[in-house]
Amino acid sequence: MARPAAQVAATPQRLDGEPVARACVVGASGFAGALAAALAWAHPNIALEAVTARSEVGRRLADLHPRHRVPLELEAFDADRLAARADVAFVSYPHGAAAEVVAALRERELRVVDLSADFRLHDPALHERWYGPLGAPELRGEAVFGLTELHRDEIGQASLVANPGCYSTAAILALAPLAREGLIADAVVDAKSGVSGAGRAATDTTHFVSVDENVSPYGETGHRHGPEIDQELAALGCDVRPTFTPHLLPLDQGLLASCYVTPTRELTGEELADVFRGAYGAERFIELVDTSPGVRDVRDTNFARIHSLVEPGGRVLVFCAIDNLWKGAAGQAVQNLNVMLGLDEGAGLG
Amino acid sequence: MARPAAQVAATPQRLDGEPVARACVVGASGFAGALAAALAWAHPNIALEAVTARSEVGRRLADLHPRHRVPLELEAFDADRLAARADVAFVSYPHGAAAEVVAALRERELRVVDLSADFRLHDPALHERWYGPLGAPELRGEAVFGLTELHRDEIGQASLVANPGCYSTAAILALAPLAREGLIADAVVDAKSGVSGAGRAATDTTHFVSVDENVSPYGETGHRHGPEIDQELAALGCDVRPTFTPHLLPLDQGLLASCYVTPTRELTGEELADVFRGAYGAERFIELVDTSPGVRDVRDTNFARIHSLVEPGGRVLVFCAIDNLWKGAAGQAVQNLNVMLGLDEGAGLG
Amino acid sequence: MARPAAQVAATPQRLDGEPVARACVVGASGFAGALAAALAWAHPNIALEAVTARSEVGRRLADLHPRHRVPLELEAFDADRLAARADVAFVSYPHGAAAEVVAALRERELRVVDLSADFRLHDPALHERWYGPLGAPELRGEAVFGLTELHRDEIGQASLVANPGCYSTAAILALAPLAREGLIADAVVDAKSGVSGAGRAATDTTHFVSVDENVSPYGETGHRHGPEIDQELAALGCDVRPTFTPHLLPLDQGLLASCYVTPTRELTGEELADVFRGAYGAERFIELVDTSPGVRDVRDTNFARIHSLVEPGGRVLVFCAIDNLWKGAAGQAVQNLNVMLGLDEGAGLG
Amino acid sequence: MARPAAQVAATPQRLDGEPVARACVVGASGFAGALAAALAWAHPNIALEAVTARSEVGRRLADLHPRHRVPLELEAFDADRLAARADVAFVSYPHGAAAEVVAALRERELRVVDLSADFRLHDPALHERWYGPLGAPELRGEAVFGLTELHRDEIGQASLVANPGCYSTAAILALAPLAREGLIADAVVDAKSGVSGAGRAATDTTHFVSVDENVSPYGETGHRHGPEIDQELAALGCDVRPTFTPHLLPLDQGLLASCYVTPTRELTGEELADVFRGAYGAERFIELVDTSPGVRDVRDTNFARIHSLVEPGGRVLVFCAIDNLWKGAAGQAVQNLNVMLGLDEGAGLG
Repeated sequence: MARPAAQVAATPQRLDGEPVARACVVGASGFAGALAAALAWAHPNIALEAVTARSEVGRRLADLHPRHRVPLELEAFDADRLAARADVAFVSYPHGAAAEVVAALRERELRVVDLSADFRLHDPALHERWYGPLGAPELRGEAVFGLTELHRDEIGQASLVANPGCYSTAAILALAPLAREGLIADAVVDAKSGVSGAGRAATDTTHFVSVDENVSPYGETGHRHGPEIDQELAALGCDVRPTFTPHLLPLDQGLLASCYVTPTRELTGEELADVFRGAYGAERFIELVDTSPGVRDVRDTNFARIHSLVEPGGRVLVFCAIDNLWKGAAGQAVQNLNVMLGLDEGAGLG
Repeated sequence: MARPAAQVAATPQRLDGEPVARACVVGASGFAGALAAALAWAHPNIALEAVTARSEVGRRLADLHPRHRVPLELEAFDADRLAARADVAFVSYPHGAAAEVVAALRERELRVVDLSADFRLHDPALHERWYGPLGAPELRGEAVFGLTELHRDEIGQASLVANPGCYSTAAILALAPLAREGLIADAVVDAKSGVSGAGRAATDTTHFVSVDENVSPYGETGHRHGPEIDQELAALGCDVRPTFTPHLLPLDQGLLASCYVTPTRELTGEELADVFRGAYGAERFIELVDTSPGVRDVRDTNFARIHSLVEPGGRVLVFCAIDNLWKGAAGQAVQNLNVMLGLDEGAGLG
Repeated sequence: MARPAAQVAATPQRLDGEPVARACVVGASGFAGALAAALAWAHPNIALEAVTARSEVGRRLADLHPRHRVPLELEAFDADRLAARADVAFVSYPHGAAAEVVAALRERELRVVDLSADFRLHDPALHERWYGPLGAPELRGEAVFGLTELHRDEIGQASLVANPGCYSTAAILALAPLAREGLIADAVVDAKSGVSGAGRAATDTTHFVSVDENVSPYGETGHRHGPEIDQELAALGCDVRPTFTPHLLPLDQGLLASCYVTPTRELTGEELADVFRGAYGAERFIELVDTSPGVRDVRDTNFARIHSLVEPGGRVLVFCAIDNLWKGAAGQAVQNLNVMLGLDEGAGLG
Repeated sequence: MARPAAQVAATPQRLDGEPVARACVVGASGFAGALAAALAWAHPNIALEAVTARSEVGRRLADLHPRHRVPLELEAFDADRLAARADVAFVSYPHGAAAEVVAALRERELRVVDLSADFRLHDPALHERWYGPLGAPELRGEAVFGLTELHRDEIGQASLVANPGCYSTAAILALAPLAREGLIADAVVDAKSGVSGAGRAATDTTHFVSVDENVSPYGETGHRHGPEIDQELAALGCDVRPTFTPHLLPLDQGLLASCYVTPTRELTGEELADVFRGAYGAERFIELVDTSPGVRDVRDTNFARIHSLVEPGGRVLVFCAIDNLWKGAAGQAVQNLNVMLGLDEGAGLG
C-alpha cells in the first residue's frame, strides 16, 4: 500500500519563539533519547534538525515512539553531517559507546549534553572500576556534572555536560542540603524505580511477567550510581558514603529515593525545613512539600518533589520523587541546555 | 506549622497570547473537571478565574490533584460570583446535578460546555429512561452535541455544548464515516476503558484490588452511552443500533473501541481507507494509522487514533483509541470551547 | 560460596495417593511447561521424574520459576533416557519444534499431551498455511483435540492429545453449546489476554513499558487460533467462521473471550440458560454464572467461568473467563492426562 | 430468575484426612478473613463450620470473594451459635472491635487466633497510645504473640494467639537472628507493601487511580507496626528501635522489608550466613536465598524468603519477602492453629 504508515502530526506546533540553536539527538531510539527529541522538538527556542540511532535507521521516530509524535526519520550517525546542521547535541548512547561520539561532536565544536555515564565520574580509576576503559580522556577535564541545581554556574559556561544518572539525581537532591551543612553522620538510600529506567532492551528483567505484581532489590552489593552520589556529596564536604540500594517496581516512569540520615547533631523539624528552604527555596523545579510525595505527582514533569522530616527518634528522613525520564534524564538534559544557552531555565519544560 | 502545605508552581506559565475569555470550572474536584481546569490554566487565550466543587471547598486544587499544579482554591458554587468573573464555564457535575447549575450560568449569559450527560440526548423520553427526570428542559433546544468533528459549525454558534461521553466519542468517531455512507448493516462495539472513566469516587469497583490483574465486562444489558451512539448514527441516516459492551481494564487513562461492522456491501481495503480519509483527512485530532492502535499512543493527548481494515471474511473492523479524560472528556471540552470562541481549534491542547 | 543457591522446599509434599504414572515435562522452561511441571509435581497420582529444556539445561527449575518450587534440574532432551523413566509426557515446545520430540516419545510408547499447535488442526493444508511444513504426519491420525469437555471419550482412549490454544479454549467453550444447537448465524469473538500468553521470550511486545497502561488489538487480519475455533465449531455442525480478534492487556494471567452471536432464531434468556445448563451443568470445571465474569475470579484455577445473556436487541452475548496458563494450557493438559489415565478428572488441579 | 447466582464448586475437595477441629471465621468479608476461611475450608484436618461478617450477612462468601470458592453463607456474629458448632476461631475484625468478640469466644472456651492488633502489644500503655482504650484486659495475660518461628512452644500451649501484623512479620523475621546475637547497633526498615494490606474498604488511598503508576511512603512519623517490632526485638535482648517506614506499591499481594543494619561488630558474609542458618535452617516456611528475593516468588504461599549480605562498607542488609495475606496474616494464622492443635505445621498450607 502506498500511503504512509501513519497520517499524523501534520503541523508541528513549535518555534513560537525565536530559535537560538539547532539541535540533534544522537541515540534517539531509547526512552531517554526519544524524550529528549520530543522535548527539543516542542521547545520554543530550539530547532531539532536531526535524530540518529544505531539501529532502526530509516524509521520515523513517531512510529517507534508514537506518543512523542516527532516526525523526523532516524539517521545513522555521521559527525560531519550533523555538524553541518546542528549547534548542540544530546547524546543518549549506552555507557562506553558515548565517549567516542561525544569526542567527534566536540571536535566539530558542537556543545554537548551527554546522558550516558561516560563523563560523570571525575576520578578515572573509579570510572574504570565501574565502567571499564576510559573513553576520550582528553575531554574529561571539560565535562561538568549536570545536576543543574548544584552546578548551574559551571553548566552555564560548559561545552560538555555529563547529565547525572536518575538515581543519583534523586539521592543527591535529597542529601545535598544536609551534606553542605555537615549534617550527615550516616545515610541509607533505599531507592525505587519504574521499569523505563532499565531501558528499552527486551530482557528477562524487563519482561512484563517478571515485573508485574513484583518488587525486588537489585545491585545490593553495589550499583553504578553509588559513586556519583559519593562524588557529589564529597564535593560538598561530606565524606559519608551512603548505602544505596535500588529496587525495581511495577510501574513505567517514576523514581522515589527514601533517604534515612543519622544527623551529626540533633535537629528540630523547623531547623530541617530551614535547611531545605535555604537550599531550594528559589528553585523552580524543586517542590518542598509537607506531605508524602508520590511519583505520580511528578510524572511527565521535570519537578523533584521533596519531603523532609525528623522522626521521633531523631533520624532525618528525606523523600525525593522524580520522573526518571524527565528530571532523571531528558528533562534535566534540556534544563542544562537551557542554562548553557542562556535561555529561560524552564523553556520547553512546561 | 505556619508554612503552606506545598511550595509549588510559584509562577504560572500561562497567557503567552492574548486572553480572549475568562473561564471557570464548576466541579473541578473530579478527574475530568480537574483536567479541564489544568488545560484552561495553561491555555494561551483563556484566563482561568475560578474553580468550584461540591466538597473539598477551600482546598487548593494543586493539593487535591498534584499533577495538575493549578494553584487556585476550590470555591462553593455561586452563580452570581462566577458570572462577575467569567465569560465561559466548563461544568463537570454528575448526571442529574448538572442541569441546574448550567441553567443558572446560562441565565447569567455565560457560554457553557457541559461534560455531564444532562443535555446530550435530544429525545426527552430517552433521557428520562436512562437518567431520570429532565433538568432545565427549556435549555434542551439550544444544546449542541459536542462531538467536534461532527458538529463543528453548530458548536461555533452554540452557547451550550453537551460534551459527549467517553465511550460515545470513540464509538461514534469509529462508525460515523461508515454510517454516513450507508455502509453499516450490523455493528458490535466492544469497548475497553481505564479506571479513571469510572470517576474519583472510591467504590468496590474502583478499589485497586478489584481492578488489578482483572478484566471484565459490565453493563452487558445496556450502558448509558449506547443511546448517544444510536442518536448520532441515526442523525447520519443509519438506523442500526450497535451492540455496545464496555469492559474495565487495569489501567488509568485510555479507551479502546473495537468495532465489528457487517457492511451493507462488499468493500475493498482501499475503498474503506478512502471513506476514512474522506471523513477525517483534514482533521487535526484524528490520526488514521495502518497499525494496531494502543491507548498508550494517545495518552495525555486529544488525539483519536483510528485503524480500519477489511478482514478476509469481509467484515469491517475499526479500532479507535482515545484518552478517556482528554478526547473523551476535558480535552474535547477545550476543543469545543476553542471552536465556540473562534480560536485555533488546538489552542491549549499541546 | 559453597552453599546452594537456595535452601528451599526441603520435603516435597506430594504423592499422598498411589502414583499410577511416571511423568516428564519436555520443555519446562516456558510458562506453560513450568506450570505443567508444578502441577505434575504436586499431583497425588503422578510421579514427576524429569524436566527438560532447550536452554537453561543444568539449572534447577525452582531457580528459574521460583513460585513453582519444583526442585528438579533441567535436562537436555534425550528420548531414550526419558522413556526409561517415564510413562507419560507433557510436551511444551514452540509450534514446529514439538512434532519431532512427540514422534520420538510416541515411538517409545509414552502417552503424550502436546501443548503446541503441531497436532491441533486436522486439515494438513490448513496447518501448513498457518504454521508451515507438517511435522510427523504419520501421527496426525491418532491425535485428539484436547478440549476435555468436548472430546472426553476420545481423550480417554488417546495416546496423543493436542492440547488446544488458550484463545481457542475460551472461544470454543463459549460457542460450542450454541453451535451444537444450530443457533449461530454470525459471531464475533473479541478476546483479551494477559501477557503470559505471549510466552517467556523477551521481546518488544512483552517489554513492561510496551504493555503497561496499554491495550491494543493484534492479529486483526487473522490469528492462528482462529482455525482451531472454526474446526471445532464445524465438527458440531456449524459452518460459521467467527471474526476473532485478540487484544493484549496489562496483566499477567487471564483471558476473557467476549462473544457476540447473532442467533438463527429469537431466544429468550431462559432458553439460552437451558442450552448452557444442558451442555455444562455436570461439568466440574465450568462455572455458569449470572454476573459479569472477571479473569481474577479464575486466576490460578482450571475453571472456565461463563456468563450468557440475550441483550435487548436479541443478540446473544457469551463471556468466558479462564486462566490462560491453567484451563488455557497446563491445567487442561493435566485434566486431559487425568482422563487418559482414568484418574479423577480434577486430581492435582486443586 | 430462580437459579442461584453461581453454579460453583459442586463438591468441596476437603477433609482428605481426619478432622480434628471444627472452626469458624469471625469477620470473613475482608481480605485476610476470607483467605483464612479459604484455607480452613481446604484444610485436611479442619472442618470449617461457619463464617460471619458485620456487613454482607446472608451473602455467600464465594460470591463476595469468587476466587476462594467457599460456598458458606455469611452469618451475623452470635457467640452461642458459634460455640455450639466450633472448637476454634479465627477472628479478623478491625483493631478495637476484635477484643470484645474474642472475649465472648474465649468465655465459651473456643481457642482463638486473633488477626487484629488487639492483643499484640504486651504493654497496655503502649497499646492505648497507638490504638486507644484497651479491650478485654483480663485476656491480655494469656495472649501469645503469634510469630510462629519465635514463639512456637508458647503457641502450642496457647488458647489465644495474637497474630502479628504483616509488616511486623517481615521485619521481625529479618532482624530477629541479629537481635538475638546482639548484633544490631542501628537499623532502618524500609518496607513496601501491596494494596491488599490496606484492606477491603474503598477509600481515596485504595482507589486504583491513586495507586497505579505510583509509589509513596506513608506513616513516616510512626506506624502502628513499629511497636510490635520493638517489642519483639526487646524480648530478644535488643533495645534498638528501628526506623520503620512503609510504602504503598501498585500491586495486590506482597510485602518486602528491606532492612539496613549497622552491626555492633564487623561481620563476614559467612558469619552472617551462619547466623541466619542457625536461626532458620530447620524452618519449613523460611527460605534462605542467595539472590534478590521478589514478592512474586512467595505470592500465594506461606513462605518468607530472606536474603542477607554484608555490603562493602560493612553494613548488613537483610531483605525479607512475604505475601502479606499469607505469612503476613491468614497463612500464619493457620500455621499457628496447626501448632496449637498439634497438627503438622504446614497442614493446609500447600
